[in-house]
This record gives sequence, structure tokens and C-alpha cells, in this order.
Amino acid sequence: MGRAGLDKLLRAMLDAAVAVAMPDRAVPAHLPMPPKGRTIVIGAGKASAAMARAVEQHWPGPLEGLVVTRYGHAVPCEHIEIVEAAHPVPDAAGEAAAARILAMVEGLTEDDLVLALISGGGSSLLALPAPGLGLEDKQAVNRALLRSGASIDEMNCVRKHLSAIKGGRLAAAAHPARLVALMISDVPGDDPAVIASGPTVPDPTTRADALALVEKYGIELAPHVRRHLEDPACESVKPGDPRLERAETVMIATPQASLEAAAEVARAAGITPLILGDSIEGESRDVAKVMAAIAKQVIRHGQPCPRPCVLLSGGETTVTVRGDGSGGRNVEFLLALAVALDGLAGVSAIAADTDGVDGAAEVAGAWIDDATLAKAASLGLVAKASLARNDGHTFFGTLGQQVVTGPTLTNVNDFRAVLID
Amino acid sequence: MGRAGLDKLLRAMLDAAVAVAMPDRAVPAHLPMPPKGRTIVIGAGKASAAMARAVEQHWPGPLEGLVVTRYGHAVPCEHIEIVEAAHPVPDAAGEAAAARILAMVEGLTEDDLVLALISGGGSSLLALPAPGLGLEDKQAVNRALLRSGASIDEMNCVRKHLSAIKGGRLAAAAHPARLVALMISDVPGDDPAVIASGPTVPDPTTRADALALVEKYGIELAPHVRRHLEDPACESVKPGDPRLERAETVMIATPQASLEAAAEVARAAGITPLILGDSIEGESRDVAKVMAAIAKQVIRHGQPCPRPCVLLSGGETTVTVRGDGSGGRNVEFLLALAVALDGLAGVSAIAADTDGVDGAAEVAGAWIDDATLAKAASLGLVAKASLARNDGHTFFGTLGQQVVTGPTLTNVNDFRAVLID
Repeated sequence: MGRAGLDKLLRAMLDAAVAVAMPDRAVPAHLPMPPKGRTIVIGAGKASAAMARAVEQHWPGPLEGLVVTRYGHAVPCEHIEIVEAAHPVPDAAGEAAAARILAMVEGLTEDDLVLALISGGGSSLLALPAPGLGLEDKQAVNRALLRSGASIDEMNCVRKHLSAIKGGRLAAAAHPARLVALMISDVPGDDPAVIASGPTVPDPTTRADALALVEKYGIELAPHVRRHLEDPACESVKPGDPRLERAETVMIATPQASLEAAAEVARAAGITPLILGDSIEGESRDVAKVMAAIAKQVIRHGQPCPRPCVLLSGGETTVTVRGDGSGGRNVEFLLALAVALDGLAGVSAIAADTDGVDGAAEVAGAWIDDATLAKAASLGLVAKASLARNDGHTFFGTLGQQVVTGPTLTNVNDFRAVLID
Repeated sequence: MGRAGLDKLLRAMLDAAVAVAMPDRAVPAHLPMPPKGRTIVIGAGKASAAMARAVEQHWPGPLEGLVVTRYGHAVPCEHIEIVEAAHPVPDAAGEAAAARILAMVEGLTEDDLVLALISGGGSSLLALPAPGLGLEDKQAVNRALLRSGASIDEMNCVRKHLSAIKGGRLAAAAHPARLVALMISDVPGDDPAVIASGPTVPDPTTRADALALVEKYGIELAPHVRRHLEDPACESVKPGDPRLERAETVMIATPQASLEAAAEVARAAGITPLILGDSIEGESRDVAKVMAAIAKQVIRHGQPCPRPCVLLSGGETTVTVRGDGSGGRNVEFLLALAVALDGLAGVSAIAADTDGVDGAAEVAGAWIDDATLAKAASLGLVAKASLARNDGHTFFGTLGQQVVTGPTLTNVNDFRAVLID
């Protein structure tokens, strides 16, 4: 394969990964049959407005509803009201929208349909404290949990028992209407109980579990919060609850489906795709070292598969910020990959956030090939130094190797492709 | 596959990986024909004494010689003198041995054979400053290079131009005798110029390169050290030098060959081996997160290959010590792997240093399965907390899941196998 065109091939893989996760493509294919009665569209998440518009454009009957999305993520809709609220720390706008959404699904009949449009970020956008609690109570517990070292699953268990809408309560409120939740996953394992803290799916954890965690991590609770957790009425909706009998979940976009779409582009170009994981975590620069080592193994030993091949992966890496540069997870990964490969002939790569925003900048990511370090050096850039400063956006901006998609209004996490041609 | 026996299968893979790298197995297969004249055995490295014994036991004719190994790594030999010296900081014992080794190969004839037994650690064990320089001069430059951020390749370039024996000089001294270097590799890429700083192979770098690096990193040189580097006589032996015409390198043990041996054990047990890399680097806990993500991908999506399969890898990870526990690279990797897998059914793993010593303790490594976290909890051990303290040896010692091989007197770096059954 010639050098030229590799960046285009990598970009085509990214574009395929993003396209298959876009609401205007993923929503229409998964819409249920219209009901005899009313159709109520609700939802929360960074993609929920774009999802609502896709529903409007393809729905054959009347509909009405309300979705809440992050500030700046609204798109114009005709029949569905779009509300913007704060993320990741909930605000009063989100709380008011959540209360209206909950009220909107109450009192429906068996003939009605609730379409719930759920995507990442929905948890904080759909924050509605249980009766008697305030947003500040939930936030105090949240902060204490974050400090405690509790896992995400443990935090969600406690949160679901302080909420009026999460842990299946939204779906229970919609009973006896049919509820179809269309979800875009940005979490490892695509667990619907985790995406937006599972407002439409049963919660197997109990308030006893929540109290045990409060005990385990020594979380101090205000007296009225403790009384709430000790009240059997705070239980979330459990698996087998008849109120959830008519609630379904359809995963319309996932990191895995996006990787499969990119794999298809690779196959069409005669390149073997190797999907290593849809939820790879770890420090960006160390994940890059592992990918570099696998690429070297392909070149030296034809393992784990012969070239040409492409290592595909998703998931969210981490950056421990040490410098004062302008960066993000994906450009950090690429800088470290370039340093580890040190110009190794035949390896190129792309990495980008599928939401179009890697870190602070409105840049999705970047790409490298085996000439990148030399080109950088000719411009006076030292990759190792840029990495030490976490300065990936400056580095790739100067090189002209940024990937700019604009905000995509969807999110199936990061996308990485390392091509050994 | 039953749960029981998985640890034995993993251990069999490790044992196969170590066995194929043991001098008593790897040396005999690669011995050249005896010469008409004398056979001189020299060498340096952590495995050199065990290699010398293997030569003695299988050599059909007379021989004599001297090898230098690390304190505590000697084994009794009859005809070859074994000298112990300091590693990683050179001492006078190593310097004296290096001088004797150099003298021993001088004045040989075309009919003679020099067997050079080279393994990891040989660089500091075979430290012989160029005439006019002292060990303290080399050490001062070494320290400055380490602080400077120079790469290993760059450091080796400078070192080779301050040495009387490295950069091909040992082989040049042996001319016109035939020289066969038997090497055990513990470096990424198995480059013979890197193992023990390449005393028997040509050095493509020049004193001009060395001076440029001194400039680039602002290394302060004592006046007599600078004069040395400015003297054309300090050039190392270059590729194409006729004095190296009769010098050969035979790589008798490598991380890759050990992974292949483990792969054979897996295949025999009906498990697909996936060799991901023979030189994986990066922070242990982050490498573990990537391996955990790949194992999850195998379970959820049958990618990059269907189960049962085993992810094999070599190379040396890093541990940034934050706690005051007792640990090493391999137990740190396993602790982090166990935390990331969180008891995921069907995944077990082993990780060990092939030299038998992981970190400070005389423990090679450990193993985990999907019951490890629960068993640990029943003993009052919290894996996450042990990881935070870098306390892997205590954790696996308490669990009874350590892998103890004793010092193996060989070293092809770390061995990791993650089994998805």
C-alpha cells in the first residue's frame, strides 16, 4: 500500500464508526410500531435532542414529549420540547425537566407508547431527588462517595435509592403503557442499568445494599437522608416487578457496533481487522505502549495476525495531567504511540472521541504515520516533550494532522485504529 | 474445562517458557564444531556461569576461559573460571575480569575459537573504560545521561565510545580467531548490539554521534573525557570492519521463543494461543487494564479470537512505587488484573519473571483465577488496597498463590498468560 491514502483509509474507518452511531441513522431502524393511543417521547442525555429530531422525522403518527440535553446540545424540533440543563453537576433546569418528564408518563393507558431516548450524561441531566430530599442532599452524598473510593456500581446503588426517577422508577410510572427505551451506550459492557443510571430498567440492588455501602465507606448522612434510606418506600424497582412488564430496551448504538462498522471498512480494503476491545481503559500513554508493542509483534513475527491488519479498540482511557499543554485522551494516546513506535515503518494510526470533542478543544483527535516524528522534528517539535506537557492539540495542530468532525451529537466513546500495512 | 487444574495449566506454560530459555537446554543445541586450535570461553551476564557450565558439559574437546557474572549467580565449573562482580553499578572486580577477558582473546590464531556467552546484565559486568579513563568517569557520564532523558540507544552510543571492550572491540581483539557469540536476549527487538552493549557486534554509531548527544543533552564532561571523545582513536568498531568477518551471533534464547514454547503447551491443551507481543512495556497496572479489556472482549464478542484462548506476552512492565508494600512488576500486574476483572467468570492468569525473582523477593510471580478476589476477601484482604500499597507479594503470599521457581539463572524477561477458558 502506498503511504499516501493511509490517512484517508484511517479516517474512513473513523467516519464509519461515527456514522453508525449517529441518531439519524441509528434511531429510524429501531423505531417500534406506532400505538393505538398516544405517543410520548421523553429522554435524557447528550444525544437526546438529536435522537428526538430523528424520531420526529421518521414517526408516522402524532407525538408529543420532552427531552433534556446538555447545554449547547439542543437541535430544533417541532413537536418535542427540548430543554437544556447542566452536566456533569445537575442544576435546577434538569431537576424541573425531570419532574415534568415523570408527570408526563403518569396516567397513561395500555394503548399508549412511551419512547425513552437515553444516552450518556443522562444521569446528571435527569436528576430528581426522592420526595423530601433536595439536589444538595444528593450532591453531598455524591461528593462523599467520590472521595471514598467506591466503585461506579456502588455509587449508582446509593444514588438509585435517593432518586425519584432512576432505578426503574420512570418506567414504573409509565405503566401500563408500553415503554421502549432506545439507548446509545458509552459504558463498558453496555449495561442499560448503568447508562443514565437506568431510569427504565429494574435495579437488582436494594436499600440494604445502599445502607451497607454507606457503612462500609463511612459516609456521613444528614438525619433526614438516613431516615429516607431506612424507609422501605425508598426501594428502587426490582427485577420481576410487574410494572416493568411492558418496558423494553433497544441498544441502538454501541462502541462494539461502531468498531464492527470500522472493521467492515478495513475488510473492504483488504486489511484484517482485529477488534481488541470495545472498552479499553487505563492511562493513555500506557495503553499506547501496549498497542505499539502489539504492532511491533505483527511486523516482527506476524502475530497475533499477519499484516496488513488494523488493531481496533474503543473505550475511555485516562490522562493524568502533569503539564500545562492543550490535550485530550486521544491526542495523548497518539503522541505516546508515536514516541513508542519511533518512526517504525509501516505503522499509522488514528484516535478520536466519537462525540467530536477530545478534551477541551473542538477537535475530535488526530492521526499519525511513520513520517510524523520526522515531520514534527523539522517543525521544531519534540514529541516526547509535547507528551510531557500533555500538549497533543498543539502538536497535531502545528503538524496539520488534527481530525476535526465538529460535535457529532452522539457518543460511543473513543475510537482507535492502529494500522500495520 | 474444570476450575481445578487451570493453575497447573498456566504453570505448565510458564515452565515451558522458562525451560526453553535455560542454558542447559539452549546452549548445547547451538554449539559450533570444535576448532583445530584452542577453544577460549569468555562471557558476561547474569546467565553466563550457567551457560559456561552447559558448555563444559557438552564440549567434546579441551577448553579454557573466564566468564563474569553477578554476585550470587556463580555455579561451579571445572575448566572455566567464574568471577562474580557488581550489577547494575560496575565495580573493580568486573573491571579486572573484563581486562583479563580482553587479554585472553588477544594473540589467537585462525585455528582458534572464541565462545562468547552473553546475557542480560553483561553491560555493567563487563565495564572496562578506555585507556586513560576510569570507572568513575564512565559513571559520572552515566548518571548525567540518566538524568538527561536520553533514550537507551542514545546512552549506549555514548557508552560505547568510552569503553575498551564494548561496541565490537572484544570481537575485534579476538581476530583472526573465529568468534561465536551465544546470546540470551532480554531486550526488545533482540538486538545483539544492545544486549550487554554489544561487545561482539559492530556499532553503527560514531564518536561524532556521541559528541552530538553530549551537546544535545548538555552533558558536562571532564576535560580528559572530552579529549578522549575528540580523539579519532575512540571510534567503536564499524559495520564492515574486516576484524569482525569471523564473528557470528547466535540468539539461543529469546522472549519470543519462550512465548512460542508456552503457545505449544496451550495448543496441546486445545487452547488457542494469541501472542500479543514479546516486549510489552508500560506501567504494570495499566497494561493489566488493557489485558482485562481484551479478555472481556473475548468473552462478550469472541474477539480477537473465540474462547478457549490464552493471551501470551513478554517484556518488562514498570511499577511506579507509591506504597510501602512488598511487590514486583508481575504481582503488581496480577493485582491490577484481578481488580479490573472483578471476579469475571472464566478468566485466570499467571505472571512471573523468568529469572525467578520478581522485584525484591525470591518469588517469581503469582497466579489468579476468578475466585481469587472472593478468597482474598474471606482472608480480610482487599485487592484494591494491596495494589495501592504495591503489596503484591504479601497479597499472594497470604493467598498461597505465589509462583516460586527459585533463581533460574536465565532471563528472557517477564512472562504473562491470561487464559479465557
